[in-house]
Amino acid sequence: MVRFAPAVYERPDPEGERRRRIVRILQAALGAVDPAVAVRRHVQRRGDTLQVGDVAYDLRAYRRVLVVGAGKAGAPMAQAVEGILGDRITAGRVNVKYGHVAPTEVTTLTEAGHPIPDEAGVEGARAIAALLEDAHEDDLVVCLISGGGSALMTLPVDGVSLADMKALTDALLRRAATINEINTIRKHLDQLKGGNLAQLAAPATVVSLLLSDVVGNPLDVIASGPTVPDTSTFADAHGILERYGLLDEAPASVVEHLCRGMAGAIADTPKPGDPIFAQAQNVVVASNDLAARAAEQAAADQGLNPLVLSTYVEGEAREVAKVLVAVGREILASERPVRRPACVIVGGETTVTVRGDGKGGRNQEMALMAAISLEGIEDVNVVCLATDGTDGPTDASGALVDGTTVERGRALGLDPYDYLARNDAYLYFAPLNDLLLTGPTNTNVNDLAFVFVW
Amino acid sequence: MVRFAPAVYERPDPEGERRRRIVRILQAALGAVDPAVAVRRHVQRRGDTLQVGDVAYDLRAYRRVLVVGAGKAGAPMAQAVEGILGDRITAGRVNVKYGHVAPTEVTTLTEAGHPIPDEAGVEGARAIAALLEDAHEDDLVVCLISGGGSALMTLPVDGVSLADMKALTDALLRRAATINEINTIRKHLDQLKGGNLAQLAAPATVVSLLLSDVVGNPLDVIASGPTVPDTSTFADAHGILERYGLLDEAPASVVEHLCRGMAGAIADTPKPGDPIFAQAQNVVVASNDLAARAAEQAAADQGLNPLVLSTYVEGEAREVAKVLVAVGREILASERPVRRPACVIVGGETTVTVRGDGKGGRNQEMALMAAISLEGIEDVNVVCLATDGTDGPTDASGALVDGTTVERGRALGLDPYDYLARNDAYLYFAPLNDLLLTGPTNTNVNDLAFVFVW
Repeated sequence: MVRFAPAVYERPDPEGERRRRIVRILQAALGAVDPAVAVRRHVQRRGDTLQVGDVAYDLRAYRRVLVVGAGKAGAPMAQAVEGILGDRITAGRVNVKYGHVAPTEVTTLTEAGHPIPDEAGVEGARAIAALLEDAHEDDLVVCLISGGGSALMTLPVDGVSLADMKALTDALLRRAATINEINTIRKHLDQLKGGNLAQLAAPATVVSLLLSDVVGNPLDVIASGPTVPDTSTFADAHGILERYGLLDEAPASVVEHLCRGMAGAIADTPKPGDPIFAQAQNVVVASNDLAARAAEQAAADQGLNPLVLSTYVEGEAREVAKVLVAVGREILASERPVRRPACVIVGGETTVTVRGDGKGGRNQEMALMAAISLEGIEDVNVVCLATDGTDGPTDASGALVDGTTVERGRALGLDPYDYLARNDAYLYFAPLNDLLLTGPTNTNVNDLAFVFVW
Repeated sequence: MVRFAPAVYERPDPEGERRRRIVRILQAALGAVDPAVAVRRHVQRRGDTLQVGDVAYDLRAYRRVLVVGAGKAGAPMAQAVEGILGDRITAGRVNVKYGHVAPTEVTTLTEAGHPIPDEAGVEGARAIAALLEDAHEDDLVVCLISGGGSALMTLPVDGVSLADMKALTDALLRRAATINEINTIRKHLDQLKGGNLAQLAAPATVVSLLLSDVVGNPLDVIASGPTVPDTSTFADAHGILERYGLLDEAPASVVEHLCRGMAGAIADTPKPGDPIFAQAQNVVVASNDLAARAAEQAAADQGLNPLVLSTYVEGEAREVAKVLVAVGREILASERPVRRPACVIVGGETTVTVRGDGKGGRNQEMALMAAISLEGIEDVNVVCLATDGTDGPTDASGALVDGTTVERGRALGLDPYDYLARNDAYLYFAPLNDLLLTGPTNTNVNDLAFVFVW
């Protein structure tokens, strides 16, 4: 179970008791999306039958079982799969972030760079490709995908270097290209993304277990969809460069590859309906939605009235905070949309337009604006939590605030607006003991936010 | 009934039929907060008994009935009161915005400047003050307050000119003072705000009917609370000038008045518990909440599942839009937090950080971001409506969008991001016939937004 540093809930009742109940709900939510728990919930073995979601695989039909994949949760996912398949696993290669390792039996974990890909990751991805190139019809490939998988499993096409990819991505980001546009280009410059991993593994059977870190769980976006049909084309990728005026600025190797693709000299990414996907199953084993539902159940178990508002929330953190507090104020005023004691649950991932040089993260910033909006209001808590335990470049997973937070800050001489303007929520909350401190949770299904009205 | 220009709903079914149902719900919401309807709902006369909310007044106890007040809905409110009290009204003075007039019997309507106060408004306010100064214990004062009342009923204290007030307000706005801070100062520089109208009318009985245009209906904020106790002091007002470094820049007359007030040479605004308020009743006759509840009922009558999320929503319009769409996506995915066909209702008032020089308003901007977030999603509509019929400096009250809006715009060569960047939503929506066009509705209870999931 994920443990929270007790300072956040060690305070006089009733606030202390409320905060302890809140922490139990957060623990239930995080427990449901623990990578190993998530894998075991969706993958069971009974003798020679491997049940994955609603599909049963007869293990006697497979000569080899290969485990591949990438992501920050790669180690516990690999451990869980090894626990289920044991010595049926022939070989395994999973790329993980530096330090995100754990003991495995057969699977080799390659530590690699994240969020900026490095040569170690490319080497690991090359080893994964080598394993799959060799796969046959009687092989079963289990692919483990989790947050960070796109960067951690980067394998540029021949002729394009990692430096080329970085220069291209930087140029696209400077022109404010969307993540979808960047991904469209990446899928056409990588040997594993955009269904290319499934293509490489064909004619083997591919079972992909995905721990989703993308709002709404779009399969083709999670880790750039290595085992999922791609609807975009070389022409789309080229068109994006053209639209941003990057055909001259982009590395020549990139433009040349896309042009050759458009000319038909290189096969495009596999499209929906491609027969290779008849042998491919993609299962989301953990997602924001699952965590939200676990929180909903845990809140109900504690006698609270839960309401999941949405697991698709995006937007500027401090503005989303105002909407959450607005819902809390409505519940206080009219017990709508849910009666007290209420637990409103929101999932997704907000963004912060950084203007200051402070220390914080999107969840802490959201909690700080919530604290400001809540000032003087009794019987309400707002909680903002990064499920990976690391909100922004801090060691906090978020914050837990109430109507006294700002007053307690003022007593210490802290002006909440100053801290907000500097994006400095971490240093605001630290002396108030309103930070949620868990350490890394080994999972990542984006963020959860809660409004409690007691 | 408020009429909508038909172009917004004249289109092929099923979209046309959906939009016609939406318009009926909007009409029900606006109908409930029509100023005359709202006054009549809360004020009834049976012979010599005047029932106002839960208080009964024996009209035989009053020698005179005086009608005063200010606000954009002043004319229809005065008409309604005249319809109820008829020849029992002795005299009346209500300040309204230029053009916002209607025939009245006894009440004199003074047309005045809004949002920037002008001398006509000051003259009208002076006439109101003259009427009240003369009031006795056996007088009944009916005060009609609606949106814009603060600017329309400006009566600076002796020695402070309208130009001084304008210079002061401009300086405060430049320093990003909050509306609460500005109001604290105004209440201490005006002869009618901050309970001073009730003070002036004492010992008469005061019945104040408020059409609330402030989120959450805080009585002391609506029109700067002329008939409501004020908790702020001369020292608070002076402290705000000091905090923003304005003691030198503010007009000398202003600083001098506040200093004399702090020294006790001038009585402060009347405070909670002041005996004058024993004879004062404040009744919110229409508010955002009332409109939201009428919409809720109208949606239910049409077989939709309504859910009022909050009537306290504030924040940057485009960011709030993302949260609304997120709720719509959740309903599509899981029929949570409410089952389809769903009508999610949100009230409040958003803001726009203006960066472009386009034509639009907060509701149209919110709808434009909603349209972007909804692109390609079927069976969802988002509606953003200014209840006064005038969203920003435009003749539209808002917009009604769906998952085809952006595609229809592209077909006309319109890039939604360009229009958003220019704050130019009006010109984006106009050729698409997605604008809501009602003309002024004569009421104002802030904004309503809706997410329909069919």
